[in-house]
Amino acid sequence: MKKKENNDASRLKIIPLGGLEQIGLNITAFEYEDSIVVVDCGLSFPADDMLGIDLVIPDVTYLKDNLDKVKGFVITHGHEDHIGALPYVLRDVNVPVYATRLTMGIIENKLKEHNLVKGTKRKVVKFGQSINLGKFRVEFIKTNHSIVDAAALAIYSPAGVVIHTGDFKVDYTPVYGDAIDLQRFAELGKKGVLALMCDSTNAERPGFTPSEKTVGKTFDTLFEEHKNTRIFVATFASNVDRVQQIINTAYKFGRKVAVEGRSMVNIIETARNLNCISIPDNTLVELDQMKNYPDEKQVIITTGSQGESMAALSRMANSMHRKITIGPGDTVIFSSNPIPGNEKPVTKIINELLRKGADVIFQDAHVSGHACQEEIKLLYTLIHPRYSIPVHGEYKHLMAQAKIAQSLGIDKENTFILSSGDVLELDHESARVSGKVPVGTILVDGLGVGDVGNVVLRDRQHLAEDGIMVVVMSLERASGQLVAGPDIVSRGFVYVRESDELIEEARSTVDEAIQKCLDKGIRDWGKLKNTTKDVLSDFVWKKTKRRPMILPIIMDVD
Amino acid sequence: MKKKENNDASRLKIIPLGGLEQIGLNITAFEYEDSIVVVDCGLSFPADDMLGIDLVIPDVTYLKDNLDKVKGFVITHGHEDHIGALPYVLRDVNVPVYATRLTMGIIENKLKEHNLVKGTKRKVVKFGQSINLGKFRVEFIKTNHSIVDAAALAIYSPAGVVIHTGDFKVDYTPVYGDAIDLQRFAELGKKGVLALMCDSTNAERPGFTPSEKTVGKTFDTLFEEHKNTRIFVATFASNVDRVQQIINTAYKFGRKVAVEGRSMVNIIETARNLNCISIPDNTLVELDQMKNYPDEKQVIITTGSQGESMAALSRMANSMHRKITIGPGDTVIFSSNPIPGNEKPVTKIINELLRKGADVIFQDAHVSGHACQEEIKLLYTLIHPRYSIPVHGEYKHLMAQAKIAQSLGIDKENTFILSSGDVLELDHESARVSGKVPVGTILVDGLGVGDVGNVVLRDRQHLAEDGIMVVVMSLERASGQLVAGPDIVSRGFVYVRESDELIEEARSTVDEAIQKCLDKGIRDWGKLKNTTKDVLSDFVWKKTKRRPMILPIIMDVD
Repeated sequence: MKKKENNDASRLKIIPLGGLEQIGLNITAFEYEDSIVVVDCGLSFPADDMLGIDLVIPDVTYLKDNLDKVKGFVITHGHEDHIGALPYVLRDVNVPVYATRLTMGIIENKLKEHNLVKGTKRKVVKFGQSINLGKFRVEFIKTNHSIVDAAALAIYSPAGVVIHTGDFKVDYTPVYGDAIDLQRFAELGKKGVLALMCDSTNAERPGFTPSEKTVGKTFDTLFEEHKNTRIFVATFASNVDRVQQIINTAYKFGRKVAVEGRSMVNIIETARNLNCISIPDNTLVELDQMKNYPDEKQVIITTGSQGESMAALSRMANSMHRKITIGPGDTVIFSSNPIPGNEKPVTKIINELLRKGADVIFQDAHVSGHACQEEIKLLYTLIHPRYSIPVHGEYKHLMAQAKIAQSLGIDKENTFILSSGDVLELDHESARVSGKVPVGTILVDGLGVGDVGNVVLRDRQHLAEDGIMVVVMSLERASGQLVAGPDIVSRGFVYVRESDELIEEARSTVDEAIQKCLDKGIRDWGKLKNTTKDVLSDFVWKKTKRRPMILPIIMDVD
Repeated sequence: MKKKENNDASRLKIIPLGGLEQIGLNITAFEYEDSIVVVDCGLSFPADDMLGIDLVIPDVTYLKDNLDKVKGFVITHGHEDHIGALPYVLRDVNVPVYATRLTMGIIENKLKEHNLVKGTKRKVVKFGQSINLGKFRVEFIKTNHSIVDAAALAIYSPAGVVIHTGDFKVDYTPVYGDAIDLQRFAELGKKGVLALMCDSTNAERPGFTPSEKTVGKTFDTLFEEHKNTRIFVATFASNVDRVQQIINTAYKFGRKVAVEGRSMVNIIETARNLNCISIPDNTLVELDQMKNYPDEKQVIITTGSQGESMAALSRMANSMHRKITIGPGDTVIFSSNPIPGNEKPVTKIINELLRKGADVIFQDAHVSGHACQEEIKLLYTLIHPRYSIPVHGEYKHLMAQAKIAQSLGIDKENTFILSSGDVLELDHESARVSGKVPVGTILVDGLGVGDVGNVVLRDRQHLAEDGIMVVVMSLERASGQLVAGPDIVSRGFVYVRESDELIEEARSTVDEAIQKCLDKGIRDWGKLKNTTKDVLSDFVWKKTKRRPMILPIIMDVD
């Protein structure tokens, strides 16, 4: 179906700069003529095969190449997968950052760690408020999520309005603040919305995500059932509402609360400063002080609900915590679900806690922060967009939302599942993927940003699999004759004391081969190194069916 | 509570030689006076931190130390976690193996691969049949499981009867053969059973595991719904009944079936030879021949349902299979659940299949092979044992079964959660853990059995994390002076072309430190190596916040 299209320059472009290929890199450029605004700037945690990598951030070459156009970052909420890459990206793309209050508080903590507070323009935006960014206007709309102050964005351009939900759920009875601003979505929908970019995380799940408040009731019940024991609650550091509810229940039952885990302490501190959490006097105590209270007066809220081996819960379970050890009689409530991929470490810590004699509660004390199918349908019905662009999820989640959109009457051809770098051009006439911009992922390892690439990762995988054998030899410069070695040193290959013979046999195999080369007058180091690799690799494979990395090093001696 | 105890030697000892610490190592010794029988001999797959390891097998030092007592292995069923270590263990503990027909068929395949068929005494046992093994008699009792010919064992000793369920479920309408022999369990229970060792895998799940036959009905429905597409079904290689049902449905719908994946082809072949599967004529075709049939006449049964990257399904999804590529219009049915820990790879392949345009069905086409709570209660009620010894599961599963046993009236003190190596001594008077025998795990890497230990694994982890820097230098023997180097070669640390400067700076830092040592007359290689490590490690940490392995090598030159 051919349609009349405007000149490219006067159409809206939506360009995900991360996403599908590496879940967590939520960053999307909106471009219209000379203006670009960027929604979110998330980081991602390394895949299993990214050995030794700390973080993954998006490659923002496209923004750097169009720096004069970029007007600012507009941020939906304060989770790592939406703000985590800011400290890295702002170094190259130093534009203002716009966010709601708590989101900005958390961003500022990050910028402080990176000494970037002074150099970054920041503006706190209120719900209902709009900011002008070149050809764009962006309105922040109240939503609900597992962190306070989450926003959807209405992005106004001359080509039409796009609504980006950020991460959201519909919570009619939120713990803090108002319910999601459904009226505003309806109002915008009535006027006409070009496209909806909606959170797909739970698009496979039927029904409606329960209110955060239901968890509060569960805490009341659980605290009632465990009146005589110390209570630990493990949850996500950033879930301020959850912490609020634990504190409410603790206060009701006359218990003191301590918070353990650096990330959680930081966020609670920030939330407290911004009045996003309300803690009754004399309820919060330092962990050190807990020893002054009997077990049944204690609640310890802790990080580590994902089984992270270095987090507080794991250390307390394994008697490696300086102040607290979990043991018989303690009650541990997991107020969380394992994030996909964390099932094994979470199970490991549950087994460990049970073995220590603790009572472990792993059900009903958590609700998701993401919309299920009925909520997604509600938003589509209120907003009634022309185009559906599912965001935030793996391919299967985006597909599930696309099917929901289609079931609500949106044409299949008006539904777009975008890959990173896709340029979706759209206006009220038509929409199509018109091109591709350079995108990718940058690996952060220690202080190094981008200095670990595929070659290094491949080497690490090789080293991890079978270790390394280093073969060193010294050649006399003038004669080209061996004056020392070959010697073999191995690491991660086989325990040496058990394999002296193997190594010695390997050494003499290499020695023989090198001597043969030298006798033939071969002096080229490349050839000698290749001979070493081939001969040793064959030998080792035959003997062990392993393929350690083989690293020949030749030295020149006068 | 103190009770009179018999002399140790005339009590029954139950000793798990693997299990809790490394799930999968199912191997339990039963000892009475001069006789030991061993139930099962499983292997386990490496934990995430066992880099480069292929398999994990149990350390059977205890059996080797008591070789004259060991009368034989009695095997419950043909899954890897019950038979996989046999080819390794039989080399040291060469005693007869007893198993039912298909189980023995699968064991023989394994022994063939290891050239152990001739050297191993084997006896196929029928259900209801007993074998005498020293002071023991062992009876094989029919059960149901996700593999044909699974058996429970009644182990008779002068101290009483112990029933070991193996892995089981209660299937009143099994696909092949009879339902579990509940009457025999009742009969034994009536006479008096000392202890029940019952499968705990699903002890956390309420209710009853559905019959394998229900999956057949699901296949009928799914095939009806996808009449016009090629159908792929991914399932476990060893689930012969599942394959039988897929073939039945395919036949009903006039489709040809090909089986892909080496392990599955082998097991189907074995099952066919033993008449454990019945395939209508002209239904099974070679994969090569499938191209002669239209899509709607094809069914391809394949391995890879756990997302294994080298299995057939993954290769077909990623266009890396020589014969078949899955694409738009194809239907892929997962007749499996992800095993805990495999969620991520399974999701990855689902996303890949969806992206290729395939229709992916991931629900209702699988049932578990393990008993849920109501089935466990049924067995306890029929058998009415004095002692409960939950087996097969993580700590939380064993705990869940212990609670079930207690809810049925078994004293808490008569419930035993055993760790590997625990010696449980029991008779009708009393039971207690009286000691510990040496146990452990042995890592298999290529041809090496046990030559990779903690030192090698730690090195591999270190190498995987940050790579290696090798520092080589040659010292003249007589003068002790540097005649070549120090040179630095790195792998898996940082991409070298981007870091020439870093490496050069590191080199001169080491050079300077070594020169200083030599100038001071320090000639001891140990000291020179330590200096190199310290200086380089500090330098690299300051520059990169990484800790590569540092390997100094000094050569002697005349």
